[in-house]
Amino acid sequence: MPKTEGSPARIVIDWGTTSFRAMLVDEAGAVIEEIENERGIKVLAKGAYEQELRDQIGGWLHTHGPMTIYAMGMITSRNGWVEVPYVACPVSVADLAGKIMRRSLPDGSEVIFLPGITDLARTPYPDVMRGEETQIVGFGLEQNMTLVLPGTHSKWARVAEGSIQGFQTFVTGELFALLAQHSFIAASGDLSGEPDMAAFERGVRTALAGTPQHDALPTLLFSARAGMLAGQLQPGQMRDYVSGLLIGHEFAGAFSCGWCRPGDMVGIVGNDGLNDRYARAAKIAGLLVDDGGEHAGLVGAVKVAAELEALHR
Amino acid sequence: MPKTEGSPARIVIDWGTTSFRAMLVDEAGAVIEEIENERGIKVLAKGAYEQELRDQIGGWLHTHGPMTIYAMGMITSRNGWVEVPYVACPVSVADLAGKIMRRSLPDGSEVIFLPGITDLARTPYPDVMRGEETQIVGFGLEQNMTLVLPGTHSKWARVAEGSIQGFQTFVTGELFALLAQHSFIAASGDLSGEPDMAAFERGVRTALAGTPQHDALPTLLFSARAGMLAGQLQPGQMRDYVSGLLIGHEFAGAFSCGWCRPGDMVGIVGNDGLNDRYARAAKIAGLLVDDGGEHAGLVGAVKVAAELEALHR
Repeated sequence: MPKTEGSPARIVIDWGTTSFRAMLVDEAGAVIEEIENERGIKVLAKGAYEQELRDQIGGWLHTHGPMTIYAMGMITSRNGWVEVPYVACPVSVADLAGKIMRRSLPDGSEVIFLPGITDLARTPYPDVMRGEETQIVGFGLEQNMTLVLPGTHSKWARVAEGSIQGFQTFVTGELFALLAQHSFIAASGDLSGEPDMAAFERGVRTALAGTPQHDALPTLLFSARAGMLAGQLQPGQMRDYVSGLLIGHEFAGAFSCGWCRPGDMVGIVGNDGLNDRYARAAKIAGLLVDDGGEHAGLVGAVKVAAELEALHR
Repeated sequence: MPKTEGSPARIVIDWGTTSFRAMLVDEAGAVIEEIENERGIKVLAKGAYEQELRDQIGGWLHTHGPMTIYAMGMITSRNGWVEVPYVACPVSVADLAGKIMRRSLPDGSEVIFLPGITDLARTPYPDVMRGEETQIVGFGLEQNMTLVLPGTHSKWARVAEGSIQGFQTFVTGELFALLAQHSFIAASGDLSGEPDMAAFERGVRTALAGTPQHDALPTLLFSARAGMLAGQLQPGQMRDYVSGLLIGHEFAGAFSCGWCRPGDMVGIVGNDGLNDRYARAAKIAGLLVDDGGEHAGLVGAVKVAAELEALHR
């Protein structure tokens, strides 16, 4: 991260299931220093969060004095430190700022836990996200646009009129991990070697063919094995072909669920290394891409922080 | 198995990836004796199949003299003993009998390897089955009917005019195993305890709702987590709810791919313990069920044997 000359104004923490990330940022939201490691909530006891936080960022507080710490991610969930209830769509920055929860540290620093959001219109149960909404805020709510946030549980969301209007989860990344690690694909595929983007794009095109057979994901996935038996797919292509099938199928689902139409521009927001694959799939699907960059979460947290600080000034 | 008074006429072997099953049968196809164990091809070296077979059924051959042994399952695949090429649909019993391959044992017994079948009309690659076609023959090819064969890779097939006309694979069972053993469902679900068939049927109904959102399997699966977060699903219900989602989704796919329509009768053929779940899902989907029983594979092998024996008499 580039260092800046600004003085430390706040700390932003993204504390997930498997990772911890803290950023010391200046007034304008530029990162001055950063800590990143694998001390996610999964490896910590439920009562250990406060001490862990003090261990991780105590140096900053000691050097710069008490600060406000903005925390997002699974640390705000039922299994985290402080459970912040979901805010229902449509959700503006002011709505998020209005539903935060606070805890004080002994040195006078305050931890502000940001809420997740829920879309009550989804069936059979309300959909939920926790952390991605801050990335969406960072991307911006001003334009009328659909965004996709690639990930283990990727999210498609609609922003318009300064609010997140609604969203839908696809467990695409989790299915890929299961198939790549534990399935017949692992048994027959060569998982080493460089990514084969031609095989990936072949998978995307297959999934977007638009026939009922290709829409049925459990049939589509079998095409990996059938293609190998037919001598049309090589073991080294299996992993990326299946990645393409799953991501292509997600785009087909996004079309049929009304999130976008060919010719539309969609924003791709995220930092999990999948943005390139989603951009390639979007292009094949006939979409234009607005790249949301990799720091939307930080930008979003700073926007919520600015909103809160303005309220209390 | 009931013992009969008939004298041993042949041996039928179903030799799969993880299991070995041999049946000593009389002229009419009744089972006289049976051997079943986990000596599937996965645990055997490629050159070890003949010795393994002689070890397993040597006693029968010693007692009753040389016999014809009909072998089906993955033992006839590329990774098996003798690879028998796939026969292309439409496939009759005579077509199967015409494409067998033979090996002689030292005692004069002959092993007849039955072929698998392929549906060249499927895209993007021809679909394949190996073993299920013998079960379909056992069910019968006389009626004009759609059959489903539940399993790790379940098959929907159309029989008409004495032939298997075509088929489609759904990897439903494999997805369920992956999700139940390795996914967030395993992390949050209680996998012990009795099956909860009410939760199963709730999953089936959810998958059959017919909306684009419910048709998108990666969204549908997330409803398990969303339902738990909403307090609508309990940990003990997760496993069967997800089973219902996946099987219900398979029926929705079978409808959209044209295998059947509500009101039709479908045959359910198989022996993997899923027939009851598929029958429940069929009923919810508005289908009538013709139960193909659990011994269709044996009946089918005996039909192919009778065809071959008639040819050589």
